[in-house]
Amino acid sequence: MKYPNNIKPNFKHNISYDNRGMNLEHDINITNQYYIDNNIAFIYKKPTPIQITKVEYSKKGAIIKEAYFKEPSTTDYNGLYKGLYIDFEAKETDSKTSFPLSNIHNHQIIHLKNIYEHNGIAFLIVRFNKLNKTFLLKSSDLLAFLNNNERKSIPLEYFEKKAYLIEEKYIPRIDYLKIIDEIGGIK
Amino acid sequence: MKYPNNIKPNFKHNISYDNRGMNLEHDINITNQYYIDNNIAFIYKKPTPIQITKVEYSKKGAIIKEAYFKEPSTTDYNGLYKGLYIDFEAKETDSKTSFPLSNIHNHQIIHLKNIYEHNGIAFLIVRFNKLNKTFLLKSSDLLAFLNNNERKSIPLEYFEKKAYLIEEKYIPRIDYLKIIDEIGGIK
Repeated sequence: MKYPNNIKPNFKHNISYDNRGMNLEHDINITNQYYIDNNIAFIYKKPTPIQITKVEYSKKGAIIKEAYFKEPSTTDYNGLYKGLYIDFEAKETDSKTSFPLSNIHNHQIIHLKNIYEHNGIAFLIVRFNKLNKTFLLKSSDLLAFLNNNERKSIPLEYFEKKAYLIEEKYIPRIDYLKIIDEIGGIK
Repeated sequence: MKYPNNIKPNFKHNISYDNRGMNLEHDINITNQYYIDNNIAFIYKKPTPIQITKVEYSKKGAIIKEAYFKEPSTTDYNGLYKGLYIDFEAKETDSKTSFPLSNIHNHQIIHLKNIYEHNGIAFLIVRFNKLNKTFLLKSSDLLAFLNNNERKSIPLEYFEKKAYLIEEKYIPRIDYLKIIDEIGGIK
């Protein structure tokens, strides 16, 4: 069996596969690696932003000895697919009935709105862990919900009605670009 | 005078402005902030990739106590401009005669090639510090040079002939998107 670059099978990996619902980030990362390996799309997770306050230098190179996590100013994933600018945030929830909006920072929503208005492809991927369902919600439908509701969570019914269910399979794990193809862009 | 968000003028900043040739990254960051503030484009520098090996938790939150710098797998900057996917790397050199290719990792060149082939806008920004000249070199011209030369540096003449000189002014500092407009995309 051919594995994507840098993703070597091991015992832990196999366990993780059995519990595939447990780690959305992992599933997206190996899906993106599949897209890269097969020359389909070039979408990457951005590194975690860090404020470095202390670095030491040794013969082996620089070691960061003190640093702090910073709040990300944009979404976690962006890249290129067939000439389209792709930008999204991915979140999991253990709720069976709704997605709590506290999971997304306000500046991330502003960022998704900016991308949408400048003709990029912006969306959320939301996994309901307990339901084994992963949805792609277009930014326009996210913004429509926010404009018309005072609620602090998006009900599952809204996803069932407006979002696209992403098929989960062995490879690619969660083929979210298939949805982009099907709906012919995302506006 | 209106300053972009988060960029407050101070004594150090004024010094840095007088020595504008000294820090390309700073100039690009404030240019990108200008584009964001004026709703022109949404292009960001990616955070430095870090391998975190030790984190401590206190009342004030998490503190990273040990981490290492990782090699970036892509370029430093990407984003969206008028529906176009923008991707570039920025480098300075103190040489007056050529740009040493050792400044760019091989996987970054592969990345620029991938972006070019999938209809993204990929380029290098190179500043010759001692000459006070900053060029935008399209990825197609970078790749053409690499395919036709065994040299370990790109001579200044190649930039003078093939690349676009970026005008430097007060605000926006280095208006590289003007070049993208002028050449109508970048293929």
